[in-house]
Amino acid sequence: MVLCVLKRRLLRSSSCALMGRLQRQSRGCVYSSIHGFSHEEIREKLQAFPGGSVDLLKHDSGIAVLTINNPARMNAFSGSMMVDLKERVSQLENWSEGKGLIVHGAAETFCSGSDLNAVRAISNPQDGMKMCMFMQDALTRLLRLPLISVALVEGRALGGGAELTTACDFRLMTSGSVIQFVHKHMGLVPGWGGAARLVRIVGSQKALKLLGGALKVDPELGLDIGLADEILEADQGAATALQQAENWLSRYTKGPVPVIHAVKKVVLAGRELPLSEALRTEKEVFGTVWGAPANLQALASKSKHK
Amino acid sequence: MVLCVLKRRLLRSSSCALMGRLQRQSRGCVYSSIHGFSHEEIREKLQAFPGGSVDLLKHDSGIAVLTINNPARMNAFSGSMMVDLKERVSQLENWSEGKGLIVHGAAETFCSGSDLNAVRAISNPQDGMKMCMFMQDALTRLLRLPLISVALVEGRALGGGAELTTACDFRLMTSGSVIQFVHKHMGLVPGWGGAARLVRIVGSQKALKLLGGALKVDPELGLDIGLADEILEADQGAATALQQAENWLSRYTKGPVPVIHAVKKVVLAGRELPLSEALRTEKEVFGTVWGAPANLQALASKSKHK
Amino acid sequence: MVLCVLKRRLLRSSSCALMGRLQRQSRGCVYSSIHGFSHEEIREKLQAFPGGSVDLLKHDSGIAVLTINNPARMNAFSGSMMVDLKERVSQLENWSEGKGLIVHGAAETFCSGSDLNAVRAISNPQDGMKMCMFMQDALTRLLRLPLISVALVEGRALGGGAELTTACDFRLMTSGSVIQFVHKHMGLVPGWGGAARLVRIVGSQKALKLLGGALKVDPELGLDIGLADEILEADQGAATALQQAENWLSRYTKGPVPVIHAVKKVVLAGRELPLSEALRTEKEVFGTVWGAPANLQALASKSKHK
Repeated sequence: MVLCVLKRRLLRSSSCALMGRLQRQSRGCVYSSIHGFSHEEIREKLQAFPGGSVDLLKHDSGIAVLTINNPARMNAFSGSMMVDLKERVSQLENWSEGKGLIVHGAAETFCSGSDLNAVRAISNPQDGMKMCMFMQDALTRLLRLPLISVALVEGRALGGGAELTTACDFRLMTSGSVIQFVHKHMGLVPGWGGAARLVRIVGSQKALKLLGGALKVDPELGLDIGLADEILEADQGAATALQQAENWLSRYTKGPVPVIHAVKKVVLAGRELPLSEALRTEKEVFGTVWGAPANLQALASKSKHK
Repeated sequence: MVLCVLKRRLLRSSSCALMGRLQRQSRGCVYSSIHGFSHEEIREKLQAFPGGSVDLLKHDSGIAVLTINNPARMNAFSGSMMVDLKERVSQLENWSEGKGLIVHGAAETFCSGSDLNAVRAISNPQDGMKMCMFMQDALTRLLRLPLISVALVEGRALGGGAELTTACDFRLMTSGSVIQFVHKHMGLVPGWGGAARLVRIVGSQKALKLLGGALKVDPELGLDIGLADEILEADQGAATALQQAENWLSRYTKGPVPVIHAVKKVVLAGRELPLSEALRTEKEVFGTVWGAPANLQALASKSKHK
Repeated sequence: MVLCVLKRRLLRSSSCALMGRLQRQSRGCVYSSIHGFSHEEIREKLQAFPGGSVDLLKHDSGIAVLTINNPARMNAFSGSMMVDLKERVSQLENWSEGKGLIVHGAAETFCSGSDLNAVRAISNPQDGMKMCMFMQDALTRLLRLPLISVALVEGRALGGGAELTTACDFRLMTSGSVIQFVHKHMGLVPGWGGAARLVRIVGSQKALKLLGGALKVDPELGLDIGLADEILEADQGAATALQQAENWLSRYTKGPVPVIHAVKKVVLAGRELPLSEALRTEKEVFGTVWGAPANLQALASKSKHK
């Protein structure tokens, strides 16, 4: 028994090293100084375009709500909101009790991309690409959080707002809402990683149609092509859309925190890694829950029932 | 003509080297000593937990039947059954006349994962991960067999049993059967590679739902999300489920052995490799059937019909 | 302002280097001399089997039509047609005004693969593999063109003809048409990259069924499994199938050339590259349209409307 505890302790320390590695990896550093990316430089530039905010509310239930808040501009991202977003993602990375996340917009609409005022001021390609690196970094880290995340789409998700929805695990659309990659109408393509993620959600043929045709995706089309996971109908017992989204999400976030994190991690590995690497990660994540309290308790309970 | 035969011979020898390489690769060694994996050590440990068996029947038709056989425990895997499974997979790798494989469970139920008695005894994470490496190795080699394989799901496929179904090319479900990744209820996630493979079959969103919600997948849901390829209705002319599965499979295993193997290999390469590598493998596999007896015979027959 | 123009110029030159790299990469050199591939050697061998042609018509609309033209043999590829095809793909790579491409066959049928006469003469595996390398190279470059491409399938697309359809972004099927990977009936598997690409379009399970069963795919089945993107019904206001295909395609090719190319490139990157690399490419492609004329014009027009 003593030996077993000792073994467990040794293992825990090596398991900690492992989890640190997974965590760093899952913090998704797509860019670093070797890509000519200076986080501080672009951050300072973005701060020069203030307006709105990105707010985070962490509930005791383990579900957090991230609100894109700039209703005067249909929740378009100002520069300071981009900085806000990254700060909120950092907080979520460090939220050890977290299990789920709902991303939505203030005033019953989702997000209309980036604020044209900020956009005009940084209209040279070099700065544009830096802005992309900043937002790709934030959204990749959002996607790789150990939480199960849903975008709750009310009203409009346009341009960068449509891209933001693809950084969540799931998308719920209220009736009457629209997701539209309008980039082409602005002479653009996605740059926040929305194209890369969209291809992974709906496949490359549908992605080419959505981007090439700047198609409006209503809830029915969304469900049909796999961009939406469920349509939330209005007035189900007078619950707000946010309450409905919490209910929907809670089906997948029941249970102990480490198990939910492990579920998200093995699926993430399955999605992003070649088979051999995904298998190795799955085995390592398995090692973090096997013989852990929740597992031992379930085994003991099975014993009793016999 | 002599020159041509000589060329063919030279080619065959280089083609043999190639096939050897493909074969070794297709024997899917996910783990070796560099991963701290000692096949013998874990094998010995597993043998200490006996019970049940995994049985293999090779038919002259080129279709084999692998039976998970431990009906007293709903065909749960004892330790010795894990060792059995790997032995059977080795036999299938060396079955040069094989074309198809049906994996099913004894007594009209599929498999309920691992035997809790064995599980409790190896409940420390280090041994748990070793068991995962052993089973991932067996199941990856099963998936990469040059045979076309189906899991015939009757009754229940639970936990590791659900994972086992994903190591086959196809899944057939009889009416009333259920596939359920129950891991979360045990404080666990898949560790036999089931998460990595499930993501490849149904996509990461559906995989996250199935694992996060421990959802029961009945045949209709299975068909809808792409986990099941067909529902076998009972009493079709009093054929057993096994006979029905053989009929279903025989549609895809008609024809010469080398051609069936080649079909499986190009699809496997298409699934696991980046495009450029998949193209190169496809070209190499094509070289093993082009100008081979079955091809020459087909060409000659086309000639005659003219 | 002067500084800004200077910056823009510097950027353009580095952006040119980038685009050159993307272009070379997008010219998809799957094979080079290090793979023992001599383009000239196989080209000469193929030229020895003449017959038919592959014709290219570039319209001012930015949509080109590529016609597989050998009606006496159901548009089967002679050796010289393979050489033709590669030449036409080169012309399309250099067509700076191009936005879309329709690939179809002469005389209301698509293409029946390779001409059996040529095939018999090169029936040794080594030459067969060289022919595959030549065709894989041509079709990979076709798939990676910065144009949005559709295969218009009338009549039959058999064997290599079925493979050709998978080298386009989309597939339109007229009623009564059939796509069939008949390779198995010839003792073969695809070798022009059709298996690798088919898996990417319909998934590995459906690909295994289509190849293993040599299944006939009619328009309804095509639409159901995602191989076809639309069924073109006959006699819609007496428009020819080609006119219908142009109408269909024009939904996705409206707008400035650089934006269409950018759309295709980000989707291509999303399909072929791991997430981190796809994100980097997306950012670089974004840099080619951000602040470019079409974008500045759209911004200015938004300003006016305010």
